[in-house]
Amino acid sequence: MTSFQPPLWRRATAELLGTGLLVAIVVGSGIMAEQLSPNDIGLQLLQNSTATVFGLTILILMLGPVSGAHFNPVVSLADWLLGRRSGAGLTLPEVGVYSAAQVVGGIGGSVLANAMFDVGTSFSSKDRLTGAHALSEVVATAGLILLIFALARTSRGMLAAPAVGAYIGAAYWFTSSTSFANPAVTVGRIFTDTFAGIAPGSAPGYIAAQAVGGAVGLALVLLLFPTAGKAADDVVVPHRADD
Amino acid sequence: MTSFQPPLWRRATAELLGTGLLVAIVVGSGIMAEQLSPNDIGLQLLQNSTATVFGLTILILMLGPVSGAHFNPVVSLADWLLGRRSGAGLTLPEVGVYSAAQVVGGIGGSVLANAMFDVGTSFSSKDRLTGAHALSEVVATAGLILLIFALARTSRGMLAAPAVGAYIGAAYWFTSSTSFANPAVTVGRIFTDTFAGIAPGSAPGYIAAQAVGGAVGLALVLLLFPTAGKAADDVVVPHRADD
Amino acid sequence: MTSFQPPLWRRATAELLGTGLLVAIVVGSGIMAEQLSPNDIGLQLLQNSTATVFGLTILILMLGPVSGAHFNPVVSLADWLLGRRSGAGLTLPEVGVYSAAQVVGGIGGSVLANAMFDVGTSFSSKDRLTGAHALSEVVATAGLILLIFALARTSRGMLAAPAVGAYIGAAYWFTSSTSFANPAVTVGRIFTDTFAGIAPGSAPGYIAAQAVGGAVGLALVLLLFPTAGKAADDVVVPHRADD
Amino acid sequence: MTSFQPPLWRRATAELLGTGLLVAIVVGSGIMAEQLSPNDIGLQLLQNSTATVFGLTILILMLGPVSGAHFNPVVSLADWLLGRRSGAGLTLPEVGVYSAAQVVGGIGGSVLANAMFDVGTSFSSKDRLTGAHALSEVVATAGLILLIFALARTSRGMLAAPAVGAYIGAAYWFTSSTSFANPAVTVGRIFTDTFAGIAPGSAPGYIAAQAVGGAVGLALVLLLFPTAGKAADDVVVPHRADD
Repeated sequence: MTSFQPPLWRRATAELLGTGLLVAIVVGSGIMAEQLSPNDIGLQLLQNSTATVFGLTILILMLGPVSGAHFNPVVSLADWLLGRRSGAGLTLPEVGVYSAAQVVGGIGGSVLANAMFDVGTSFSSKDRLTGAHALSEVVATAGLILLIFALARTSRGMLAAPAVGAYIGAAYWFTSSTSFANPAVTVGRIFTDTFAGIAPGSAPGYIAAQAVGGAVGLALVLLLFPTAGKAADDVVVPHRADD
Repeated sequence: MTSFQPPLWRRATAELLGTGLLVAIVVGSGIMAEQLSPNDIGLQLLQNSTATVFGLTILILMLGPVSGAHFNPVVSLADWLLGRRSGAGLTLPEVGVYSAAQVVGGIGGSVLANAMFDVGTSFSSKDRLTGAHALSEVVATAGLILLIFALARTSRGMLAAPAVGAYIGAAYWFTSSTSFANPAVTVGRIFTDTFAGIAPGSAPGYIAAQAVGGAVGLALVLLLFPTAGKAADDVVVPHRADD
Repeated sequence: MTSFQPPLWRRATAELLGTGLLVAIVVGSGIMAEQLSPNDIGLQLLQNSTATVFGLTILILMLGPVSGAHFNPVVSLADWLLGRRSGAGLTLPEVGVYSAAQVVGGIGGSVLANAMFDVGTSFSSKDRLTGAHALSEVVATAGLILLIFALARTSRGMLAAPAVGAYIGAAYWFTSSTSFANPAVTVGRIFTDTFAGIAPGSAPGYIAAQAVGGAVGLALVLLLFPTAGKAADDVVVPHRADD
Repeated sequence: MTSFQPPLWRRATAELLGTGLLVAIVVGSGIMAEQLSPNDIGLQLLQNSTATVFGLTILILMLGPVSGAHFNPVVSLADWLLGRRSGAGLTLPEVGVYSAAQVVGGIGGSVLANAMFDVGTSFSSKDRLTGAHALSEVVATAGLILLIFALARTSRGMLAAPAVGAYIGAAYWFTSSTSFANPAVTVGRIFTDTFAGIAPGSAPGYIAAQAVGGAVGLALVLLLFPTAGKAADDVVVPHRADD
């Protein structure tokens, strides 16, 4: 089935656009929230998380048929690792292309959101790294990987769009870090000094925790879903075969 | 399949009713919000956007089988442009009828909402046009067009109702303009001097930006989804064939 | 298919239980909201409407296979009127049984909610009837009837649960009356002097407006969906045939 | 079909993990809410309930194929009781294993949430038991059992994930107890002195009320859905057969 997937340039374009719009949604809704509800940070986060649930869901729905809608280097890497035995999944060079596109898109998304709100682009001054936040990123990323591949390995990849959206809607709130859970998004969010930003000094720790979380998630996938389903190569959404 | 679609007068009625109810929902929930939560504009917008997500979803679900549930001249125009090669989609005269019905409905929706809240109908005094808002309308409309035709071109038009609803739920928040993204709704919202209104002087700039966004969205559709699916003529929801 | 539907006593029990739980959800969440968010009526309504969206959706899902999950005399009456020609739908005596069960359930739901919050049961003192509210009830009920039978007549009755839930989520906000749209629920809400209550003197006007709205909705159904689908006798959710 | 279900140790692991994450979501989002929105308890509950709706939905979706995603001793017990006649459902020893895993998971979830927010683990000091709360727990648990087995007995178990999530979204609000409705979660929530905690002295009364509610729910299932569907042994989500 993967032999009919779109050419790599088109898939990379989809990953760039999707990750970019995801960061634009996270950053933009954060700016709107802090401008309109200045007196209640919890209300700001509710507005921010609600917009992200909706936005992430439709981005996966929209671009899944092109690239699988990873939007996240940890997901792309896990796709390679889990697909190696069967020959399905991305190749390692493709993981590199996907990840580069995701990071570039993530940065572009911050710049776009800043422009839509007439805010200058600059590094975030928001230090976020603590031990509790690092633990949160491990948990958040492990849960994300377990969810995505639980669906893929039980032939329910078509539910990934609303499921991943809903997952983030919970994870924003049950972790102290608000669940970045995505290295490309973390890098992108460095480039805005607004509600959703993260200081450059905090990003490496977040990304390291996300890598650990990815490994924990993979271990849980292998423990709970040892057998790959027939559709296991179709992460998130089946690729199109008519193109 | 389109040869069995409902007669044009019935489709135009559905477009008029649907656009009217959409504007009534946007305007009415805006009035309710500013009356009941006077101290937090962000909370007002959350109430307004939540009501719109639910309302837009059910309007597309309800009227899609009659007219395709465009409710938006940019969508009708894009349907014609993308369907020309295959002979599917609306004809240009039909685009005119649809657009007229949408604009009349949009104005009626404002009048209805005003009446339901015992507020007089008058022009809005809310100036909205800035460069950042114009950029926001470009992005919002491009995303809307890309979403709708990505679903249509991958034979998933039946997901359009919740997907377009969810899209607006994100777009209200990640753009500084709160995503009008629709010329008929923009015209309709001139006719209420309440939360969701737009001053007559701001409307042309918004509509121009929406036209640009529509073109950007079409370009992205052709880049990412170059092949029309078998159901590409059924925008939003398949037409009924039993009528 | 209706020849295998559950016996009338079981269907009436489902209507009584479902309408009762619906009113318990509306009234109970209203009490919780006014107790916990005393300083913002809009936030109270958001909590109240969110709980109702979720609750109404699952009640229709849960009890639809037993009774059709009308929970509303206007819906039962419309089911009879639209089904007469084809011999499908409820009979007029069944409409009477359904309506009685709905009203008894609605009153019981208020009493239950009051008890769950340790609030005494008494008549509401909240006068609600104005011209704008009556217009709102006409619009809200017409939209509800159009939605339910649009789905039934296009063989999509299985979408009624989330669709009707979402409809109410919009209608709470875009009408000034907060959309009672249901005579049995209106009667039930007389019996609580809390957030969701309605004074006895306001109820008849609300119910009259709902009847007018039902007629408007039926006219729109016949205008836009003149042909009944094959499943038109299965309002809301197909009846079970294995019982 | 149940003859191919995963080995008991894997199902118990899924129950432990799922119940643990459920309690982590409830407790963690409660801590976040009281930290970020200190001035409005209703807003805190809205944040808490919204996160729980999303989180419970994806946990059932994710782990349903492994263990059935009970996460609740009352559900496991009801599964045994309803399945005895047909030989489907859990055996009584399996109910014991499931329940033990759920309770251990529930406690672990509180500890994890406390750690993610850098809050020490200690017994809750929040006394909750009143007559109105006990009545609420009876109603909440009865409704939960009726919903789950109504879906199972009408072959719609695949809707359980969003349906149970939505149910809790309503039940948080229409009951004065905020609907614990789950003995394992109740025990887990003893171990956090934060928003979602419950004092050890209140837990037994809550659990007793949940047991009564479970019995009421079972009676309603037998009254309204007397015939088990073919899939009645697959509570919540069909088990995987390829493992």
